Amino acid sequence: MIIVPEREIASLVTPADCFSAVENVFAAMARRSASNFPVVREALGHADAIYGFKSGFDRESLALGLKSGGFWPGNASRGLTNHQSTIFLFDADTGQCRAMVGGNLLTALRTAAAAAISTKYLARQDAEVLGMIGAGHQSAFQLRAALGQRPFKRIVGWNRRPEMLSRLADVATEHGLPFEAVDLDRLGAEADVIITITSSFAPILKASQVKPGTHLACMGTDTKGKQEVEAELVAAATVFTDEVAQCVSIGESQHAVAQELVRPTSIVEIGRVVAGLHPGRTSGEEVTLFDGTGVGLQDLAVASAVVNLAVAKCVAVQIEI
Amino acid sequence: MIIVPEREIASLVTPADCFSAVENVFAAMARRSASNFPVVREALGHADAIYGFKSGFDRESLALGLKSGGFWPGNASRGLTNHQSTIFLFDADTGQCRAMVGGNLLTALRTAAAAAISTKYLARQDAEVLGMIGAGHQSAFQLRAALGQRPFKRIVGWNRRPEMLSRLADVATEHGLPFEAVDLDRLGAEADVIITITSSFAPILKASQVKPGTHLACMGTDTKGKQEVEAELVAAATVFTDEVAQCVSIGESQHAVAQELVRPTSIVEIGRVVAGLHPGRTSGEEVTLFDGTGVGLQDLAVASAVVNLAVAKCVAVQIEI
Repeated sequence: MIIVPEREIASLVTPADCFSAVENVFAAMARRSASNFPVVREALGHADAIYGFKSGFDRESLALGLKSGGFWPGNASRGLTNHQSTIFLFDADTGQCRAMVGGNLLTALRTAAAAAISTKYLARQDAEVLGMIGAGHQSAFQLRAALGQRPFKRIVGWNRRPEMLSRLADVATEHGLPFEAVDLDRLGAEADVIITITSSFAPILKASQVKPGTHLACMGTDTKGKQEVEAELVAAATVFTDEVAQCVSIGESQHAVAQELVRPTSIVEIGRVVAGLHPGRTSGEEVTLFDGTGVGLQDLAVASAVVNLAVAKCVAVQIEI
Repeated sequence: MIIVPEREIASLVTPADCFSAVENVFAAMARRSASNFPVVREALGHADAIYGFKSGFDRESLALGLKSGGFWPGNASRGLTNHQSTIFLFDADTGQCRAMVGGNLLTALRTAAAAAISTKYLARQDAEVLGMIGAGHQSAFQLRAALGQRPFKRIVGWNRRPEMLSRLADVATEHGLPFEAVDLDRLGAEADVIITITSSFAPILKASQVKPGTHLACMGTDTKGKQEVEAELVAAATVFTDEVAQCVSIGESQHAVAQELVRPTSIVEIGRVVAGLHPGRTSGEEVTLFDGTGVGLQDLAVASAVVNLAVAKCVAVQIEI
């Protein structure tokens, strides 16, 4: 089998590779060729850790496997990443373990790819201003992936702790774009595309702050109880997601669905737009909202891409198992 | 991390090592220090394969992880095992992948260990005749593990295809014991301990064929619909199991519970006997029945033992991930 250690990932795979891999698997999901299996997620009662896995199978690419790992809040004090992930791929024809791939960087890249795909398919073509809510570790990946999707002219950003916005300002500078820290009223009034990537448990952005024609990618909510935007904003938007079953239970849509402001059957899988089965945005006034929760198939898709690249570039470690 | 390939397992670990590992984790389950997570099991719609995982965490030994794999019916024609399993262990303190261990032989050994543990704790001390129902690949492991638990004087066996019983006769010869192929009436009338290890979907052994004082280990039923013994036999016995939730849904007890002949609350986890929380057999006349369904914690326990042995014997492959 093939091992691709975490330290090799950054030099092997680009955000564009991850974008293509995730785009393909979203379309396969919409064609019902690919499905995610039930998520396992457990509090261990040890080291305050949450552990579990996301898994699935894509009959088109034959990607089969799981991402295993979780959240260890004490890791940072040991010099380790708090989120620890490893992706395992299996041979769909024999069940033998085919590859093991470090999953920490890939998780950030596949999450950013999902939001960027939503921007590609759902944002207005004339979008010029990108708004970022949240400035944690993930936000830089989100910003880099989004910038390629429209010819943005400037970036505005908000974070609960404004001093962290330098992270986004640095990425903007890398791309020769102006960055401005703003309040939420200005952010909503100016941004044509808004990405939320926080760990909030209460709504940050209000429906009244968002202008017609905006595309939002809400990427931070992946657990019961988390919330980044008002339920009324979700209700006012056309809602797209990676997987309906997951977004109504642990995604941003959970609140609007619980309040009966949104029916699950009205939520569209983004893969349907990618696959040409749904038109996506239908007017310049429509607010579109992508509720990205993160599915196992995304992990398998980017890990498969990494394995192919590692073999091609001769950096894969081959071992007999 | 540490890799222990499948080919190393046979020379590393003994049935006795697996017995101790499984015995300890059964007791930890009974003390509520160890728990299994929900089982994922999916038909892939490719290669007729069933794929999934069993996982869990033992807070006493800190064994954390999963066994991934499944059943690929076309493998035999490729010279591969139809059941393919790989066990992954994670560091409970950091979430990093700690070890990957071939799981094919270990699955057979941990299943046989469970039945042997039930015989140790539940069979009459004066048991002399061991009855085997089923003569497939697993049956030889079962027989070897059982023989150490009581001073058996002879073995009787039955299989749907009698020509396969030579497998059991060979193991008996290894141990200097007589083996005889018998019908089910004689098997039930003579055997003090009976192990069933078949893939049957209809009852093989009837309640009327079993004599008072018998201990049965029903090890073949691990799926909805499978059945090895009459529901009336389960109803007449004191029922023990590895995990109650699993045995009433996919184990031998599923039929007796569905017919309301047995209440789930009356089924005893074998770990309670191991841990001294339940007396086990209370008379020489009682029929005891162990419903072994196979839990993820067994896999983690034997894999942890293998990793420790591999490190001690310097055969572990160390790689950086």
